[in-house]
Amino acid sequence: MSEFRLHPTLAADTLSVTTLALSQVLLMNDERYPWLIIVPQRPALTELYQLKSGDRQQLMRELDAASQVLHTQPLMSKINVASLGNLVPQLHVHVVGRHAADPAWPGPVWGHSAPVPYAPGEGVERARRLGEEILGRLAKRDR
Amino acid sequence: MSEFRLHPTLAADTLSVTTLALSQVLLMNDERYPWLIIVPQRPALTELYQLKSGDRQQLMRELDAASQVLHTQPLMSKINVASLGNLVPQLHVHVVGRHAADPAWPGPVWGHSAPVPYAPGEGVERARRLGEEILGRLAKRDR
Repeated sequence: MSEFRLHPTLAADTLSVTTLALSQVLLMNDERYPWLIIVPQRPALTELYQLKSGDRQQLMRELDAASQVLHTQPLMSKINVASLGNLVPQLHVHVVGRHAADPAWPGPVWGHSAPVPYAPGEGVERARRLGEEILGRLAKRDR
Repeated sequence: MSEFRLHPTLAADTLSVTTLALSQVLLMNDERYPWLIIVPQRPALTELYQLKSGDRQQLMRELDAASQVLHTQPLMSKINVASLGNLVPQLHVHVVGRHAADPAWPGPVWGHSAPVPYAPGEGVERARRLGEEILGRLAKRDR
């Protein structure tokens, strides 16, 4: 079996958050939205339905933890969860916190406008805190 | 517990496809895309993470069947799966077949342009055939 390698576009557009049992968690480098990208570390998959049953269930746990953490961030009223992949074929799932005053509301964030990168250091700190919260939530579930 | 009722916007924008163990399946009345909307029949939910574990697993089975059926339709090269709900709060999941020559490619279909309704009779027939295929695929899985 070939090895999993993160797609270079995903690596270039994001900051690293954490690694979970199945997935790498990335933070889109766009300070306008709390926007996570969850990438199952399985090579050569492009569609959710291609995940094996155990991986699919683990992905759901990881998506739910990411969604709940974003939903508790200030202002956030809706979580968008989407597997698109029209541009980057490697299977990945967007989890985006949304609210009525964000730039793309009520439309989708994808293709809306160019990202506004975090200030130096801020993105890394944001990613670190989100990673801690996601790991904490998954640990609580497993107890 | 209150009763599940389909949100009137979802009802107005779609044709009925079939009802599965958990969800109603709808076909967006837009002949440009094979576009299903899967609505878990649980009242008052707005986010995927709010589904109970058994319902979440059943939704995955239903989404996978819908995705696989759309992926086998002519031309389709990518399946987009998304829970958005910025406009219609009732929990629902889009499953959309995409290809490089569709009007919105590679952008998202949501908010791209006004739908082009099916000709009379055509949408109903399309919905009927998709419903048969989804039910057939779920039955095969359960054997």
